[in-house]
Amino acid sequence: MNWTLARRAERLNPSTIREILKITERPGIISLAGGLPSADGFPVEALAEATARVLRDAPREALQYAASEGFGPLREWVAGSLQAQGMAVDAGRVLITTGSQQGLDLVGKVLIDPGSKVAVESPTYLGALQAFAPYEAEFHALAGDDDGPTPDALGAARGARFVYLLPNFQNPTGRCIGAARRQALVARAAEIGLPIVEDNPYGDLWFDAPPPPPLSATAGDGAVYLGSFSKVLAPGLRLGYVVAPQALYPKLLQAKQAADLHTPGFNQRIVHEVVRDGFLARHVPTVQARYKAPRDAMRAALERHLPAGCRWAVPAGGMFFWVELPAGLDATTLLPKAVQAGVAYVPGAAFYAHAPRHDTLRLSFVTVAPDLIDKGVAALAGVLRTALEGSPR
Amino acid sequence: MNWTLARRAERLNPSTIREILKITERPGIISLAGGLPSADGFPVEALAEATARVLRDAPREALQYAASEGFGPLREWVAGSLQAQGMAVDAGRVLITTGSQQGLDLVGKVLIDPGSKVAVESPTYLGALQAFAPYEAEFHALAGDDDGPTPDALGAARGARFVYLLPNFQNPTGRCIGAARRQALVARAAEIGLPIVEDNPYGDLWFDAPPPPPLSATAGDGAVYLGSFSKVLAPGLRLGYVVAPQALYPKLLQAKQAADLHTPGFNQRIVHEVVRDGFLARHVPTVQARYKAPRDAMRAALERHLPAGCRWAVPAGGMFFWVELPAGLDATTLLPKAVQAGVAYVPGAAFYAHAPRHDTLRLSFVTVAPDLIDKGVAALAGVLRTALEGSPR
Repeated sequence: MNWTLARRAERLNPSTIREILKITERPGIISLAGGLPSADGFPVEALAEATARVLRDAPREALQYAASEGFGPLREWVAGSLQAQGMAVDAGRVLITTGSQQGLDLVGKVLIDPGSKVAVESPTYLGALQAFAPYEAEFHALAGDDDGPTPDALGAARGARFVYLLPNFQNPTGRCIGAARRQALVARAAEIGLPIVEDNPYGDLWFDAPPPPPLSATAGDGAVYLGSFSKVLAPGLRLGYVVAPQALYPKLLQAKQAADLHTPGFNQRIVHEVVRDGFLARHVPTVQARYKAPRDAMRAALERHLPAGCRWAVPAGGMFFWVELPAGLDATTLLPKAVQAGVAYVPGAAFYAHAPRHDTLRLSFVTVAPDLIDKGVAALAGVLRTALEGSPR
Repeated sequence: MNWTLARRAERLNPSTIREILKITERPGIISLAGGLPSADGFPVEALAEATARVLRDAPREALQYAASEGFGPLREWVAGSLQAQGMAVDAGRVLITTGSQQGLDLVGKVLIDPGSKVAVESPTYLGALQAFAPYEAEFHALAGDDDGPTPDALGAARGARFVYLLPNFQNPTGRCIGAARRQALVARAAEIGLPIVEDNPYGDLWFDAPPPPPLSATAGDGAVYLGSFSKVLAPGLRLGYVVAPQALYPKLLQAKQAADLHTPGFNQRIVHEVVRDGFLARHVPTVQARYKAPRDAMRAALERHLPAGCRWAVPAGGMFFWVELPAGLDATTLLPKAVQAGVAYVPGAAFYAHAPRHDTLRLSFVTVAPDLIDKGVAALAGVLRTALEGSPR
């Protein structure tokens, strides 16, 4: 049979990271490549108790078809939680999604025509590029500095359907945009009529002080906000949400309905049962503490082992260090040598929409134990040193 | 802020049925409109035990990110279960989806370009029209008879990207395509190179004898098959699957990954834990029995009450009766009168891609108790009689 594929299918590709993980997640390899949250932090007991309560008290409702908008009390909880962060959110504008990845897909479906310009950070979250690409977006890479994209760069993106921003502890760079820059970006976006799509999966994973308020707190109806329970509870539940302005909400809702009718009501009720009485206020600090120690361990290891010429900033939250290599080194071609030496990372090139920087790599500090972090970084340093010496191995 | 919507967003619309349900699901109304499975049949205890086991034995795996293809053992189970129905399925070609609605969305995303012809039954499942429409499909409505679309009608759809068929107890008509017609359709489709997308959410809900083998059993690499756990276990888990030929599988998988990364591993492991040791062989017959009795009650009520000139076939499975009204009656305009009289149904017009027949309506027999079925059908009959008499009420 001769199946004719849609043109957009050409823009679908295997995830580079996924392919890398297949190679690198072998026994004996210290993988600093994966982006998985630490399973040690999953609140198994709380979820087990919540599930038992849901199946005891509301089994028929939890197991039946349900509203595409999501479970009402969970939408209320999300709205309340965002209000506490300074956002003026009505529960009627909260759409529960099957992970925040689905939020990205729905945003793309509703906003991107073939050839539409979409402004993204450079580098940015690979999953967003994968979600937007099949709608045949033309990506516009924003110039930036250590504080995020510059307002001038935003000005150059005028006419884009939207700008996609990850202000808190970005994947892959770990960078957090400061309060002043956020205000400047919101002001510039409003000035040129550029909608903002703000993605915040990592905002709760701060180590010293909470990040500044979301851009959506001041952007009014100029922003869509995406959140997730994956990093504060567990990703295997696939639970996220979108907060959208009235101009967009009905279309996102219809797209959601066409995509999977609704997010599992079972999962929504379980999570609501867990979070309803303030569980996250007790639980999130334990996750923060769990991630801060390996962040510190990796910082120490990088300082101890990496050769001169490597550059990195210390992330104030999230899960990743981003390392820039000395001139001339290529993280993609070095990966097989690193794997041979027993350590894996993600080459940075995958995270660029255009003009990938091959002298960058991403290290995760949340998936291996602190002593392995030191051992892994030491092995990586050895590979880099050998490459710098022009050794013929 | 001036949000510019994608052109495809124009094809997103509120579900007619959803809007109808809002009006009709008031207290005191006997709703024969809803398409919800009976919550009495949800295997709550089995799910509770399975959940407890999953959270005890594999909490870290169940709650972590997981493969986009789905949980391996569940894919194996699906393949084995389809093999038992005569399909030659390898687990490597099974993709677990977030409900079978997501399967429809992914198929549309990968196969439909703006303007692509997509052949559909007339009437057909509304959710499929909603899934395909945003990809700007041009629907081609297939002519048919009581045994389904005719091979000649299929011939006239030559050049379509695919034909979408619901062979078993179709929503909305309840029609089951016979074995000979299935063979003729598969042969004709192969002859003209027309791929088949076969949707089978209701196949297990047979009352007297199982339906003939799926078209996919003989269509080889010319068919995609969609299945679901919604009707045999519970829809609130949102668990379905797609079986696709090698020419299509990688692109569907990449589309799945972009859409929501993966279906909740938690739900997949729970369902696998429930079904792994043959639970469905014991459970499905109880669901069949639970639906057969009200099917019989509705058949009796229709025969007892409906005025001459109404036509319906008795469905051999599934959840719905499809009624054709006497000439001149319009089910859409009569609905408010029916609601006034205390009964609700879904006007048939919503299920047509083109040229809706307004003299049709869908009645569900699985959501209200048998005595209410009789009362509801009697009320409907009263409304029809009044309309036929041209009464000025």
